[in-house]
Amino acid sequence: MIKKLIRKNILQFQPYIPGKPIAEVKRELGLKDIIKLASNENPLGPSPKALQAVKKALKNVFLYPEGSGILLKQKIAKKLGLRPSNIILGNGSDELIETIGKTVLNPEDEIIVSADGFIRYKMAGELMGCRVITVPSKKYKHDLAGMKAAITPKTKVVFIINPNNPTGTYVTDQELSEFFQGLRDDIIVVFDEAYNEYATQKDYPQTMDYLKQGKNVIILRTFSKIYALAGLRVGYGLAGEELVSYLERVRPPFNVNSLAQVAAEVSLDDKQQIKRSLALVEKEKKKLYRELDKLSITYIPSAANFVLIDLKKEAAEICSKLLASGVIVRPMGEYKLPSCLRVTIGLPAENKRFITTLKKQL
Amino acid sequence: MIKKLIRKNILQFQPYIPGKPIAEVKRELGLKDIIKLASNENPLGPSPKALQAVKKALKNVFLYPEGSGILLKQKIAKKLGLRPSNIILGNGSDELIETIGKTVLNPEDEIIVSADGFIRYKMAGELMGCRVITVPSKKYKHDLAGMKAAITPKTKVVFIINPNNPTGTYVTDQELSEFFQGLRDDIIVVFDEAYNEYATQKDYPQTMDYLKQGKNVIILRTFSKIYALAGLRVGYGLAGEELVSYLERVRPPFNVNSLAQVAAEVSLDDKQQIKRSLALVEKEKKKLYRELDKLSITYIPSAANFVLIDLKKEAAEICSKLLASGVIVRPMGEYKLPSCLRVTIGLPAENKRFITTLKKQL
Repeated sequence: MIKKLIRKNILQFQPYIPGKPIAEVKRELGLKDIIKLASNENPLGPSPKALQAVKKALKNVFLYPEGSGILLKQKIAKKLGLRPSNIILGNGSDELIETIGKTVLNPEDEIIVSADGFIRYKMAGELMGCRVITVPSKKYKHDLAGMKAAITPKTKVVFIINPNNPTGTYVTDQELSEFFQGLRDDIIVVFDEAYNEYATQKDYPQTMDYLKQGKNVIILRTFSKIYALAGLRVGYGLAGEELVSYLERVRPPFNVNSLAQVAAEVSLDDKQQIKRSLALVEKEKKKLYRELDKLSITYIPSAANFVLIDLKKEAAEICSKLLASGVIVRPMGEYKLPSCLRVTIGLPAENKRFITTLKKQL
Repeated sequence: MIKKLIRKNILQFQPYIPGKPIAEVKRELGLKDIIKLASNENPLGPSPKALQAVKKALKNVFLYPEGSGILLKQKIAKKLGLRPSNIILGNGSDELIETIGKTVLNPEDEIIVSADGFIRYKMAGELMGCRVITVPSKKYKHDLAGMKAAITPKTKVVFIINPNNPTGTYVTDQELSEFFQGLRDDIIVVFDEAYNEYATQKDYPQTMDYLKQGKNVIILRTFSKIYALAGLRVGYGLAGEELVSYLERVRPPFNVNSLAQVAAEVSLDDKQQIKRSLALVEKEKKKLYRELDKLSITYIPSAANFVLIDLKKEAAEICSKLLASGVIVRPMGEYKLPSCLRVTIGLPAENKRFITTLKKQL
């Protein structure tokens, strides 16, 4: 009886499968010594000043958060050379993906995503009942030319994840510039830049320039990755003022909790935390590449804090074995990359344990 | 150009107007000594043990929250005699209102709400593009007979807020029992019981019984009110297992932050915090009634921690004057009750200041 009450789109929904939490693995497998390299978190943790600020803010936790998030918006605006009215805050940038869908997607619209991309975009399209066009990637990378060719008169939004999760690849400024040439200006281009702080390559595109030029873009960023506040849930979107004003109508009134707002504000000032985190990832990523090379295991060079490894055989089994040894990584079946696993760059000892355990299991 | 990209429903959206945050009033009016009695928060604050637990959990804030929220679900289930699979967690119960809409509401469906009810229900219906039937209230109370009479073959959900926000009235178990007689079982009845812990009246209905009898109901509750965790954002919904399984498909994967989960878990054990908070509200509410009686001001006796006051003339102006004197209350124009204001029961000194300032301004 209940089933017939449910929207058709939802009946077809595949729930999102997150990386397994440590506590759950402890419970399920009775293991004590577990490392989690499954959700691209930053193991160095957030700015210590942010944690102090959270402790101080606890005394007012009985009050609703400031709905507008104006103090955090002002800080972000100042840092990026924008106005607070160019910014929308989300319960993680994840929430904003759906906010975009709820604001602009009608059932007759189409959205374009890349095959090896974060599946929450596809879900947002399906939630709104619109057609999702999935363009195959090229060498694990968004095929921007192919995505452009897939545009039809019904196309409303194109999603570009840069660097891409779960492959770690990125599209270059040259490629992006070509993509924008002759693009219809009623198409919204959404950039998910959750990992942008890790992409230090010279040809990594500065999409903020497109926004400042008045292009129809939305840039999503987060405090969950390099800022190490994943547990607190706060992300943001950047867009033109008019578009933001519509997104704000859809945003739930108290979506970002008050501790997250305070922590994010303070985090923006701590340049050392960013520097330290970036240095760890760069150094450890190179070490991991060397170890994988020695083992002749294929991997995709990454512009983020994780690496996609192609085992050239069913990876789910290996992931289960790693899990049984207390190493949580992410099997990629959900992303239709069944021979791959994704591993987050952790602390040096964690990365070492991953490679040692992998070697043993192969 | 942007406007034509926006969904029609959204263009008609009126954004939610929250109670003004203290910091904002300080900024705008240059005031220092401000009290906020506008958002029905609990000024006694949360369980001290919950705050301790949050401080302890801070060290893992770089990790994503446990997506399933299983530990909190187990605690709630045990307390209420349900299973964890009867429970869905939300970023405040506010998020769950929308989750219900996204799960079941098609454009051809109708929902029924009461006129003097929390407007987030209406917004959830409008978001999904369905018809919202608003039934006039009777003496500031849900007219259950009228709501039942408004049911058509297209009715999918009926929303009952009990006690009702912003009027503080409640429907009795007898009235509810009559409402359910002969009700079609493919209609979902959603109870918003955010204030249930304050409703100590003997004839306040135990809707949990309906759920346990297998009726098609969803009960929404929150940690934002008596548990005093509004800043952290956590609420929950209770329903049959099948319905919860569909709601879970729509719930974003990391919607409840990790500190909120821990705080809520610990809060459930602190009976003293509840007892203390309830005692304050009961005592101070009676004092407020006496003062209003003395001034011959009309008010609606309340089963919650706030009181609706009918000034019998435009209330917005008085609210502005109160604001200028540092007392934030909630004008009710948004709820089409322009002669009313809603005041939260605060600490004794706050309530005293409210009544003194009101007297002066009238």
